[in-house]
Amino acid sequence: MPYFDSASAAPLHPVARQALQAALDEGWADPARPYREGRRARLLLDAAREAAAEAVGCRPDELVFTPSGTRAVHAGIAGALAGRRRAGRHLVVSAVEHSSVLQSAAAHEADGGTVTEVPVDGGGRVTPDAYAAALRDGTALACLQSANHEVGTEQPVVEVTEACREAGVPLLVDAAQSLAWGPVEGDWSLLTASAHKWGGPAGVGLLVVRKGVRFAPQGPADERESGRSAGFENIPGIVAAAASLRAVRAEAVPEAARLRELVARIRTRVPELVPDVEVVGDPVRRLPHLVTFSCLYVDGEALLYELDRAGFSVSSGSSCTSSTLTPSHVLRAMGVLSEGNVRVSLPFGTEEADVERFLEVLPGVVAGIRERFGAPVSGPVTGGGESLVVDALGRRCPIPVIELAKVFGEVPVGGTVTVLSDDEAARLDIPAWCAMRGQEYVGERPAEHGTAYAVRRLS
Amino acid sequence: MPYFDSASAAPLHPVARQALQAALDEGWADPARPYREGRRARLLLDAAREAAAEAVGCRPDELVFTPSGTRAVHAGIAGALAGRRRAGRHLVVSAVEHSSVLQSAAAHEADGGTVTEVPVDGGGRVTPDAYAAALRDGTALACLQSANHEVGTEQPVVEVTEACREAGVPLLVDAAQSLAWGPVEGDWSLLTASAHKWGGPAGVGLLVVRKGVRFAPQGPADERESGRSAGFENIPGIVAAAASLRAVRAEAVPEAARLRELVARIRTRVPELVPDVEVVGDPVRRLPHLVTFSCLYVDGEALLYELDRAGFSVSSGSSCTSSTLTPSHVLRAMGVLSEGNVRVSLPFGTEEADVERFLEVLPGVVAGIRERFGAPVSGPVTGGGESLVVDALGRRCPIPVIELAKVFGEVPVGGTVTVLSDDEAARLDIPAWCAMRGQEYVGERPAEHGTAYAVRRLS
Repeated sequence: MPYFDSASAAPLHPVARQALQAALDEGWADPARPYREGRRARLLLDAAREAAAEAVGCRPDELVFTPSGTRAVHAGIAGALAGRRRAGRHLVVSAVEHSSVLQSAAAHEADGGTVTEVPVDGGGRVTPDAYAAALRDGTALACLQSANHEVGTEQPVVEVTEACREAGVPLLVDAAQSLAWGPVEGDWSLLTASAHKWGGPAGVGLLVVRKGVRFAPQGPADERESGRSAGFENIPGIVAAAASLRAVRAEAVPEAARLRELVARIRTRVPELVPDVEVVGDPVRRLPHLVTFSCLYVDGEALLYELDRAGFSVSSGSSCTSSTLTPSHVLRAMGVLSEGNVRVSLPFGTEEADVERFLEVLPGVVAGIRERFGAPVSGPVTGGGESLVVDALGRRCPIPVIELAKVFGEVPVGGTVTVLSDDEAARLDIPAWCAMRGQEYVGERPAEHGTAYAVRRLS
Repeated sequence: MPYFDSASAAPLHPVARQALQAALDEGWADPARPYREGRRARLLLDAAREAAAEAVGCRPDELVFTPSGTRAVHAGIAGALAGRRRAGRHLVVSAVEHSSVLQSAAAHEADGGTVTEVPVDGGGRVTPDAYAAALRDGTALACLQSANHEVGTEQPVVEVTEACREAGVPLLVDAAQSLAWGPVEGDWSLLTASAHKWGGPAGVGLLVVRKGVRFAPQGPADERESGRSAGFENIPGIVAAAASLRAVRAEAVPEAARLRELVARIRTRVPELVPDVEVVGDPVRRLPHLVTFSCLYVDGEALLYELDRAGFSVSSGSSCTSSTLTPSHVLRAMGVLSEGNVRVSLPFGTEEADVERFLEVLPGVVAGIRERFGAPVSGPVTGGGESLVVDALGRRCPIPVIELAKVFGEVPVGGTVTVLSDDEAARLDIPAWCAMRGQEYVGERPAEHGTAYAVRRLS
């Protein structure tokens, strides 16, 4: 049963399991105690720190273990902001950071700080110039992911570190998605990561703070982990995390090449096999194992359900698969189609046959859902009046776009269709439909109920 | 090799190991995902929550898993204080709480809140009346451990919950040391615990917030664990924690009786076998598995080292075994002897023969250290002037008390000896020596260097 969601959590690496076993016997005691069980635990913890530091490319005393990547981000941002409080209270983040970064930014704003979100291009990438322009007097910290978790786009970290250095601003790099593949290049100041993304166990994150970076840990004082991560160390988990990071790194180069080829196959063939698909994310500067596409006229939740029934575990940024009923903030920031969104992230060792089978299964699954939703099967036909209004109020993605497509042929070239919708996804998906179809998106305005989205027929 | 420090961390329970194994296979995926691996993880998480809630005596939706007991305490105190901000900013704690509670209190004070520390008696116990008297208008939260981690004394939690209920103040109970033995009685509002204290793995704590208790989680928002504990759930650890809690509870009654007998043996026989020992902690209302005593004229670090060499792993609250060179705050709050302090906490399944061997080994170990430090072997002899000054500046525990004892016989009955010392332990240990020897502790005053402690000879 192929599992294609390693960007959420990778299955435990065999080396992690082995290391965990051994460390359960040797590493359960308190490493702060001087007796033999404590000394053994301390030795394991020190060795794991050295191994992790070597993989990151930092000094062991710059690296602490946290209970998760999220906690590493929370602690890293809070500590760096507090340490630079005198410099100012301005924080710069990209618009496509992980929620742990954006929620840290929201907390900082709620506490009286200011935040600039640097926008991304349609591929999900910040431009170094735009990022540099956001840095100013009073900027205490800047954050940039090494690569995006939803669409796989690599960020220009090296260029941004240079801009930050010139501006005298420390840069925190969230390397959660990329650390398995290699160290983060450039002269960054802080780095965070999460072990269960590389095949380590849940319960372990990394926070690296370079020597010389001002850092003031927040929250109640605690002696563990240099005062930067409170609570009794989860040494078996830490040992397994470090061992598996070393193991995946040893395989990273050939495995990246192999998965990159499989991902390229998905990127090329899905649009050939399935009509009306938008493959999203930067086509070149991207993670080797992750690919994302959106299918017009398809309900993301139904798609996930049907793929799961067919044996494939994937993720989605569609609005109907989230508790908030809004499309993922990443897709919104990119301004791309969000309906029928699928993220495929291949774990280490994914077999070619499984990818092939996915490509076999997908077209039928998508066609079945489209049929169920009554999606138009061909392009619009001609006929009808100058302008039409489609009332899709109360109806969820992908219905508003389906209704638009159904009537679109009824207005003449030059005529307009206005869709009334109260579904958040429509804001993203109607313009995306226009771009895919070569029609003109006129704009949106508030209606008595919901929002009116106007589209002009060009062809 | 007997390990007698389960109050720091208990060895992994066989059931925890078994459950962890199984959950590594079934519980590594993201429980928020709808595909099969996610659903399996969610089922395990839900089942673990139900098992833990049953052991605690709460509803499953009142309990969240945290990355450690310390993090549970930090989150619980911060959330309850913020939730009750309108009621006031006064926090009540006992003087002998775990450092995670006292550091939370310190952080609250640094943030402009006020804190009252309720003192304890010589046995380490708060009196319900003293605790009730600390509650007042504006008290947002009260904290009390179920039992003390260093001396084993049980606190009057039921009486204090009643006082808190009358005052309309929520009570947070830190149950880290007692949860293995049974649920916390009384109508408490919040409860915290730590899995590695009961034989679960490191990396798992519990935070329970009763329905109806005002609670506002602090830190950046996160959807996991009802918004009360950020970051990807460590499900294998959580499953192992819940399974082992259930397992230790099944054995708790007979095992408590068995260990209580072994502890009673240590409490009775150590003072018979080793001269000048003070057994500390409430003699009756105590945890079944933990006993603490202090040995006059003995360096705690040397004692731990020699016991480790003899094969026994124990803990100590002596100043010389801590990074701060001050005796444990618990011993200080109790006002008992801190030098040569030993905490013995017996894990589940401790064998009687190991306790017997400890009782055989201890007298020789203590005698050897005393000899090395030149401690007086008998009571003081008569002779000498009216008053004497002993300069012990720059010398660490146990030397100041040894020097006092050596010259004490040289002053006549009614005469005084003044000890000059800059060692923090002297403040505790010189009065304790007086109490043990039936001599009068006159008091302390600042000296040109360090502090002058005066003792009057009564016999």
